[in-house]
Amino acid sequence: MIDKVIVFDAYGTLFDVGSVNMSLARLFPDKSIAISQLWRFKQLEYTWLRALMDNYCNFESVTCQALDYVLAHFGLDLEEAERQELSTAYLRLTPHPEVRECLEALSLWQRSILSNGTSQMLWSLVESASLTSQFDSIMSADAVKTFKPHPRVYRLVTEYFSVEASEVTYVTSNSWDAAGAKSFGFFTCWVNRFGDSDEEIGISPDLKVSNLRELVSALGS
Amino acid sequence: MIDKVIVFDAYGTLFDVGSVNMSLARLFPDKSIAISQLWRFKQLEYTWLRALMDNYCNFESVTCQALDYVLAHFGLDLEEAERQELSTAYLRLTPHPEVRECLEALSLWQRSILSNGTSQMLWSLVESASLTSQFDSIMSADAVKTFKPHPRVYRLVTEYFSVEASEVTYVTSNSWDAAGAKSFGFFTCWVNRFGDSDEEIGISPDLKVSNLRELVSALGS
Repeated sequence: MIDKVIVFDAYGTLFDVGSVNMSLARLFPDKSIAISQLWRFKQLEYTWLRALMDNYCNFESVTCQALDYVLAHFGLDLEEAERQELSTAYLRLTPHPEVRECLEALSLWQRSILSNGTSQMLWSLVESASLTSQFDSIMSADAVKTFKPHPRVYRLVTEYFSVEASEVTYVTSNSWDAAGAKSFGFFTCWVNRFGDSDEEIGISPDLKVSNLRELVSALGS
Repeated sequence: MIDKVIVFDAYGTLFDVGSVNMSLARLFPDKSIAISQLWRFKQLEYTWLRALMDNYCNFESVTCQALDYVLAHFGLDLEEAERQELSTAYLRLTPHPEVRECLEALSLWQRSILSNGTSQMLWSLVESASLTSQFDSIMSADAVKTFKPHPRVYRLVTEYFSVEASEVTYVTSNSWDAAGAKSFGFFTCWVNRFGDSDEEIGISPDLKVSNLRELVSALGS
């Protein structure tokens, strides 16, 4: 018998990106929020543009390039050590508080991660959070040299598990990722941690929760 | 003999989107800048996501959907007449002041427009600005049911004129569009009207100018 398959996005979904914002706040007390928003926007923009132009470079590089843009935009400069600190901030995230217990509650499921991050970035995160034993597999968009929401990325899951898209439960805190996953055919759960408005993109997730505990309850596990 | 081909983006490049901001400022004096920025961001985001998910709907609809998101995000409501005013603001833009003289200076070139806007939106703009006679053709991404920077959009130009990409001069004020056009192979000019920072996406335009007069000088026309 094949266990049910559940796949989690990494950044924001399992791992709290708040520590990146704390590094920014220490370095730039006056405008860390504006910097943080533009960095995230540029990071996403560059992944989408590169996916559309079929001009791939990995997520770690894109994240650094987005940071370079933001520093130039705000006319800021950083010492090499500070730049290094920010560039590696994505490697040192902690999981959201409910993550461990929720993964354990889903122990009868095949649990996996699918992320834009490289395998190295993802293993780093999972190992430093001592969550390695919670996952059957970790999949990176890097394997197909493009980024979400390109269908090639989601297809990694159906090929790995040899299942139909509709048999996969996909969990993400990124509303655009939820749209991409639902469009691909996954049973999709949007973890709306911050009470964001629904995207107006003509595709709705199957399930909306505000944290992973609510997801576990909804799945009856 | 085939004339040289020059292709312009529409929004921001030929036509000033400032009047949209003026409508916003009248309706929402306190936060029109934040609304305007988020509206533009969501409009672009939705085009990129839809292009990646291969889930097309036209630019006019995407623009309205982006506005719906922004109003919900800021907890704002609009009378139907006001919503209509904003939704149609993109149909009533005026050209930047130097546009007419620069198009006339390039009269020996085959001049064209390539935009995400629908043909109807574009003809509306060009006719209301009395610029119809300045263009040999107007091309819309709507013809191939996707959005820039998908190569299928830029390919409309090479197929229409039966030329190689490198024979086309492409002009845009949108830095991401410049990246897409250069990646496709056009000789690309970025009209950096507001002194923005260079994109850090590994692709540089062939030419950078701050308005179309500088472009005409650079082309020696």
